Amino acid sequence: MNLSRTLAVARGDEPADLLLRNARLVNVLSGEIHPADIAIAGPVVAGVGEGYSGRREIDLGGRFVCPGLLDAHVHIESSMVTPAELSKALVPRGVTTIVTDPHEIANVMGLDGIRFMLADAAYAVLDIRVNAPSCVPATDLETSGARLEAIDLEELLAEPRVLGLAEVMNFPGVVQGDEKVLAKLRAFRDRVKDGHCPGLTGHRLSAYAASGISSDHECVTVEEAREKLRAGLTLFLREASNAKNLRDLLPLVTPANERRLCLCTDDRHPIDLLEEGSIDHLVRVAIAEGVDPLTAIRMATLNTAEHYRMDDRGAVAPGRRADLMVFSDLAAPRAEMVFASGELVAQDGEMKVKTLRRRYDHLPRTVRIDPESLDFAIRANGTLARVIGAIPDQLITRHLTREVPVRDGFAVADPATDLLKMAVVERHHGTGGVGLGFVSGIGLTRGAIASTVAHDHHNLVVIGADDESMRTAARAVAEAGGGQAVAVGEREVTTLRLPIAGLMSGDEIGYVRNDMRRLLKAAHENGAQLRDPFMAMSFLALEVIPALKLTDKGLVDVERFEVVPLFV
Amino acid sequence: MNLSRTLAVARGDEPADLLLRNARLVNVLSGEIHPADIAIAGPVVAGVGEGYSGRREIDLGGRFVCPGLLDAHVHIESSMVTPAELSKALVPRGVTTIVTDPHEIANVMGLDGIRFMLADAAYAVLDIRVNAPSCVPATDLETSGARLEAIDLEELLAEPRVLGLAEVMNFPGVVQGDEKVLAKLRAFRDRVKDGHCPGLTGHRLSAYAASGISSDHECVTVEEAREKLRAGLTLFLREASNAKNLRDLLPLVTPANERRLCLCTDDRHPIDLLEEGSIDHLVRVAIAEGVDPLTAIRMATLNTAEHYRMDDRGAVAPGRRADLMVFSDLAAPRAEMVFASGELVAQDGEMKVKTLRRRYDHLPRTVRIDPESLDFAIRANGTLARVIGAIPDQLITRHLTREVPVRDGFAVADPATDLLKMAVVERHHGTGGVGLGFVSGIGLTRGAIASTVAHDHHNLVVIGADDESMRTAARAVAEAGGGQAVAVGEREVTTLRLPIAGLMSGDEIGYVRNDMRRLLKAAHENGAQLRDPFMAMSFLALEVIPALKLTDKGLVDVERFEVVPLFV
Repeated sequence: MNLSRTLAVARGDEPADLLLRNARLVNVLSGEIHPADIAIAGPVVAGVGEGYSGRREIDLGGRFVCPGLLDAHVHIESSMVTPAELSKALVPRGVTTIVTDPHEIANVMGLDGIRFMLADAAYAVLDIRVNAPSCVPATDLETSGARLEAIDLEELLAEPRVLGLAEVMNFPGVVQGDEKVLAKLRAFRDRVKDGHCPGLTGHRLSAYAASGISSDHECVTVEEAREKLRAGLTLFLREASNAKNLRDLLPLVTPANERRLCLCTDDRHPIDLLEEGSIDHLVRVAIAEGVDPLTAIRMATLNTAEHYRMDDRGAVAPGRRADLMVFSDLAAPRAEMVFASGELVAQDGEMKVKTLRRRYDHLPRTVRIDPESLDFAIRANGTLARVIGAIPDQLITRHLTREVPVRDGFAVADPATDLLKMAVVERHHGTGGVGLGFVSGIGLTRGAIASTVAHDHHNLVVIGADDESMRTAARAVAEAGGGQAVAVGEREVTTLRLPIAGLMSGDEIGYVRNDMRRLLKAAHENGAQLRDPFMAMSFLALEVIPALKLTDKGLVDVERFEVVPLFV
Repeated sequence: MNLSRTLAVARGDEPADLLLRNARLVNVLSGEIHPADIAIAGPVVAGVGEGYSGRREIDLGGRFVCPGLLDAHVHIESSMVTPAELSKALVPRGVTTIVTDPHEIANVMGLDGIRFMLADAAYAVLDIRVNAPSCVPATDLETSGARLEAIDLEELLAEPRVLGLAEVMNFPGVVQGDEKVLAKLRAFRDRVKDGHCPGLTGHRLSAYAASGISSDHECVTVEEAREKLRAGLTLFLREASNAKNLRDLLPLVTPANERRLCLCTDDRHPIDLLEEGSIDHLVRVAIAEGVDPLTAIRMATLNTAEHYRMDDRGAVAPGRRADLMVFSDLAAPRAEMVFASGELVAQDGEMKVKTLRRRYDHLPRTVRIDPESLDFAIRANGTLARVIGAIPDQLITRHLTREVPVRDGFAVADPATDLLKMAVVERHHGTGGVGLGFVSGIGLTRGAIASTVAHDHHNLVVIGADDESMRTAARAVAEAGGGQAVAVGEREVTTLRLPIAGLMSGDEIGYVRNDMRRLLKAAHENGAQLRDPFMAMSFLALEVIPALKLTDKGLVDVERFEVVPLFV
């Protein structure tokens, strides 16, 4: 930025590079909506007022202009596309800055994965800021692809895109003062440290807040949110694909506390992103539920910028980045024009600037499985087994005990009674480690589904009605270098290829969305009952959420936090 | 801070060092007032809630607890005492942090003066943060004791107490993009840069805001304030001894904009500080004028902390400094107990901790005047002279033209017609330079008053009815090493000694207040009509405020911004 030139434009001594005439400015600083012309010099707003001229002028005819939207916390990997590709989906919706936690790829590829995200982000119009993943691996009851201690994370402090420390999910470790966790907090002592503390309350919540962690995005009730606000945490109200908390929390919002509230999407998959939107969707939901539009927009702009100390954005004012969203309906803002750093980058839902089509062939394979050695046979050491009980739309599971059929000395699935076999195959180090068990509540009547997206370790997870289908599905995913597949017997029905860390596609988000639809259709045609059985499956292997989960190390009783035998 | 111990106290596993029971917590974060116990570990709040125990406990019996107050902008020199001494006056009033601009001492002693303030601040219970003075000297139409360019100010960036750049009063220089001013902004590009732009509006205001300066405390009307808020400036609402703007601006405050408003005292002299108070007084005024108490307290706490990115204070919450003010009346908060960094430091208006009595004899003399050479004779080069017309309670003056009496070839004062002689004696470099002129509106009928407090250069200013009184008053001040005096003929009536840079006393504030009262009484007894003729006099030499002023270089026509002859 050339400040002398900015000042000359602000004074009116030189024409603006771009002048937006006849705007109704959503001024999140003064708390008003007022008419204004907006004079832009290079990447910043130089002047707001009347009497400016521009080399280029756009008459907005009274349309609203608000700051470009910010997503306070998002895992890009959940969109199944790369940062540069996600940018093309978000920017036309008015989102100009996101704060991402590359937690998933870090669990697969460690610092290399984070560096890939940082490098790819440079190709995005979207300004992608990165928080360092704090919990890699999540626990020692799984095998992940990497381990990041404080000393590793410190390397990220020098990266200009890195803001702070991402959601510290190991809240018991924080509360108890675990030395390795505190070392990470110390490494980021001058940075923003984000939190994640579902249901934490009372003294333990005080301890978590006293650690210097300053946010949470896991509230599910107003009561929980109110206590966390009192404890000093900034709250990110979340509307993800799998966790939809926004409507439940909106009754919390008052003029006296709104400055401590931001909006975040956390995890949104391609279908939701393309059909509903991103943060823009959350703004519309908030307004539809009765939140004042100015407040809803503040929660998506100024508040997030202030939380992350990004003083250069979050408002439309002289000296701030000219990241702007133009829209017509204050009751349901939908971006009609989007400006990023002073440039018109999207209009009517389409990008206006070309971005390079990138190739990702150079990335290392991360699925290290010998497809020929896959063996899901379970020797029957009993007939009464622990069974994971999936619950629709919940991350928690039931810890069931059931009789399982035994054939030729092996325990087998029984789809007729909703008993499926499940396997988690270690895929990072080629150890051949496999955890085996049973699950109910998925509802496949035949065939199998497989995926390398499995929070947080992202090992290969397979659920099926028979071993052959499971081997076919697992082989399809392994040969694709990662992804999700549906198979029946020897037939690979359909596969969504996610060769980047087994988490992301190198393709455009529209293709990924189509593949995902095909995949869900195939799963449903084979009897799957859940809306998204792949998402459900991905959390059946997440051993930090109760009650019974399966990792490559075996069945985990989360309440006892230890591996337990399959047979009782 | 020992985080492990803080966490243990927060969890309730170890007793707090201090537990405040039965508080009504003014929670500026959640925007509520709610019952709470406050558990303190070392210097920080560890837990807020119920069920804690403490090694020491205080039952507050339902009294209110709010965060320690912050003054967003204050010149300590105006209190006429040292930082360590001012601390003893402010802390019992609930003020625990101030942001000071050592602009006055910097104009006398340059970096040495700033370093003295920084060193003395270390002896204060009050947490004194310092902004680097941006305008030393104010202009080239005066002789100040020092000159600080960007390269000099950069030395201060390494000082832990230094936050940012203090009020950039040279707003024309900012707006026009003056290279020396921009160099200072660049030096502080990552720091907060405070502003000062009285009456600035329109395009020029946009330019000032576009420069990255982010505050202003010079608003006098709601209309002016509203435009500045829209332009993105945080506003400090000021109630100084000489500029009382708070009541005029309070109608501006709404729930939608209050987060962008802070409170500041700017300049308050000892009498006002001891009789009305500091920021606590502003909070009471705001509430009395109808502002919601929670909002008033936020403007004095959280908002200021956020403006300066002091995330460790400004709220009572786990992990933040235990800077607390206890009071009983929400309609007029008056500190009954004050805690700083977890320690009870004041109670019922008295400090509870002893501070070292400091000596300041080692400081260099800054008044370099030979009392024997003082000569205030004005050879009459005409009879029609430019005369400064003082206006009660205003910093601006009238530019008058009057016949002046001539005796023996010299132009003389004529107190009978309210015409007094004024002199500004260069006192920094011993040059013997003297500016001479006439003033009306002060109202002395005999004698003279003299002072080394004269914004911004702080040369020795004398106003008198006759030359002998003027010489006596000037000599008294010079011999004291700086200060203020009243003299009649050869008699030194009374002198307030300010030997530290000619601005501050090394004595206690109570003594200074008493001396100041004696001084004002003596001035009034000799006919002075203004409430505080010394303050009025100090601004008669400030050549950045219209219309006609006198510096050591002569009469300055501020509108033409040049030295003009005394006689027309």
